[in-house]
Amino acid sequence: MSDPQVSEMGTGPRGETPAGAASPVYHGGNLAQARAAHPGAPTPWIDLSTGIDPVAWPVPALPPEAWTRLPEPADVAALEAVAATAFGLHDPADLAAVPGTQAAIQMLPRLLSGATVGILGFTYQEHAHVWRAAGRTVTVVERLEDLARFDVGLLVNPNNPDGRLVPPERLAALALDMGATGRRLVVDEAFVDILPDGASLAPRLPLAGAVVLRSFGKTWGLAGLRLGFVAADAAFAAAMRNAFGPWALSGPALAIGRAALADRLWLEAARARTAVDAARLDALLMRAGLTVIGGTPLFRLARSEDAARLAEGLARAGIHLRRFPHDPRLLRFGLPGDVAEWRRLAEALEDLARRDAGIAG
Amino acid sequence: MSDPQVSEMGTGPRGETPAGAASPVYHGGNLAQARAAHPGAPTPWIDLSTGIDPVAWPVPALPPEAWTRLPEPADVAALEAVAATAFGLHDPADLAAVPGTQAAIQMLPRLLSGATVGILGFTYQEHAHVWRAAGRTVTVVERLEDLARFDVGLLVNPNNPDGRLVPPERLAALALDMGATGRRLVVDEAFVDILPDGASLAPRLPLAGAVVLRSFGKTWGLAGLRLGFVAADAAFAAAMRNAFGPWALSGPALAIGRAALADRLWLEAARARTAVDAARLDALLMRAGLTVIGGTPLFRLARSEDAARLAEGLARAGIHLRRFPHDPRLLRFGLPGDVAEWRRLAEALEDLARRDAGIAG
Repeated sequence: MSDPQVSEMGTGPRGETPAGAASPVYHGGNLAQARAAHPGAPTPWIDLSTGIDPVAWPVPALPPEAWTRLPEPADVAALEAVAATAFGLHDPADLAAVPGTQAAIQMLPRLLSGATVGILGFTYQEHAHVWRAAGRTVTVVERLEDLARFDVGLLVNPNNPDGRLVPPERLAALALDMGATGRRLVVDEAFVDILPDGASLAPRLPLAGAVVLRSFGKTWGLAGLRLGFVAADAAFAAAMRNAFGPWALSGPALAIGRAALADRLWLEAARARTAVDAARLDALLMRAGLTVIGGTPLFRLARSEDAARLAEGLARAGIHLRRFPHDPRLLRFGLPGDVAEWRRLAEALEDLARRDAGIAG
Repeated sequence: MSDPQVSEMGTGPRGETPAGAASPVYHGGNLAQARAAHPGAPTPWIDLSTGIDPVAWPVPALPPEAWTRLPEPADVAALEAVAATAFGLHDPADLAAVPGTQAAIQMLPRLLSGATVGILGFTYQEHAHVWRAAGRTVTVVERLEDLARFDVGLLVNPNNPDGRLVPPERLAALALDMGATGRRLVVDEAFVDILPDGASLAPRLPLAGAVVLRSFGKTWGLAGLRLGFVAADAAFAAAMRNAFGPWALSGPALAIGRAALADRLWLEAARARTAVDAARLDALLMRAGLTVIGGTPLFRLARSEDAARLAEGLARAGIHLRRFPHDPRLLRFGLPGDVAEWRRLAEALEDLARRDAGIAG
């Protein structure tokens, strides 16, 4: 726990941190750091530290205008219309396209007042980080009902990293309850697209009190594009658009988002593929002695008393995982992307188990 | 003056607007609007309404990782190092890459306190707009020295649309003067890259009080990419980075920005090409009876008592200009991008002059 990057995770359930105590957050995906720590590892590195689909929606050649011109309001409106249909919204006006969900997360404290923020833990750390940096009092709670006590309630659904999934009926009831007194429930649905239909709160919008965040990069495997959405009601969506100002989205994000979100067949195939791959990953992890405790089809959360040694051994084999400094027994595994990556992961896990047996024997 | 989009331009020199009076801003570049107003115009439309170089830095095929992975801190640092060299900064730590200059403009009121903002007019309207929206009192002044009276002083240099260019020595003196009392001078150098070396304040940074904005999209012709920079001092650059949070820049912006900003030969060629093209455009405009009153190599500002009729006639010929609702005699022309565009502009201007003569004769 000496790493200054991890102090954010130190706040346990009901832990309360004064304003301004926010510190940098530990993330997956920083492969440069892993490379530097293990210069002798075989390459290419396999990055299983994120929840990004390793099989991306195929990016076509873009029209030159996507690069050269300032995006026009009509292009943004066209993307938002396609996204609204994809997410099951009744009215595209209830939705704003943003340059990545993280950018929307950074913007939320500017748009939502209220001194107290409750977050259903434990979860993606950036939420607590930005509210604390904005001077709000953040409390991490363990039960959904506890969110009703705060000016702003927040959960990730399905949750990252454990996959906890709250039915949208319950979220709708809570949002209405909070909205009745001018408060807000924020539901970060970063990983909902990869699940079968029915898990999202978006089709019930607009709902007094409800704000839904959607991520494009994870399910469509294009995290470098920086595209996300905020769905709520028309007034909130307009405020979000206005806060970002003109030309917030890149031409490539507008063009690719519009085409990919209309590609329902690709999404169905991705859901089927990742469901199979997640089950395959679970089997691998169980054979290696890990207990799989949850996740989504894009990542699996596993527990082992031996997690630190496993992560270290896999890193020496050029495989980068997500670790959780607040609980060193946890490891999160993203999906391998191709046959070669599956084989390297399987062999590295077997190799570690064999050495283990050798030491034991 | 009935267009609700133009009220921002209604504030003349020294005009003072109370907080919250901000309204949407009139921009060039909205070709969809021009198309709708002139459905019978020949296509493709020629968009001369922006100051974006029509000959873009050639975008190569990107590595798949630029699309699929979350950008890593090391990628951002590499881009900032190349940009610092390109801009003549002593230390890359004094500079922050941002997702477009407009995004930085939106962020400035969050990072700079002070109730009063002075803007050297008339200029790009988004500056006044965002400060007013943030509740600050904005005053448009006519002389550089007048900026010293405010908590935040702001100018565009070279200025958009008239090209007014204040020597960096004078800006450095003013920034130091304001910085000595904890105030800031913001210099928007959106169009400085297209000028010969020597016009930028950046090589004198860090300077107490100075904040410099740089745009990538205009000179390199890639406005759809959304990339810009804020150069100041290490503390301010860090605050700007922190305000945007992680992954603010897209993978394509990082990859393309890094390669293009290192391509000094392309920049030298673009400067030479646009200098010649700007002179050629001036000659065309003068032959058409317009008085050229300024600009930069990427756009020319012209005046004519007949401007409204000219703009209307060119729109019917499928040529879109930038107009200025606060002064209907002004027109701004961007550079045509190829032989066909030059020919269509020349013929349309001749055609309008001929009809004029026909009516007169």
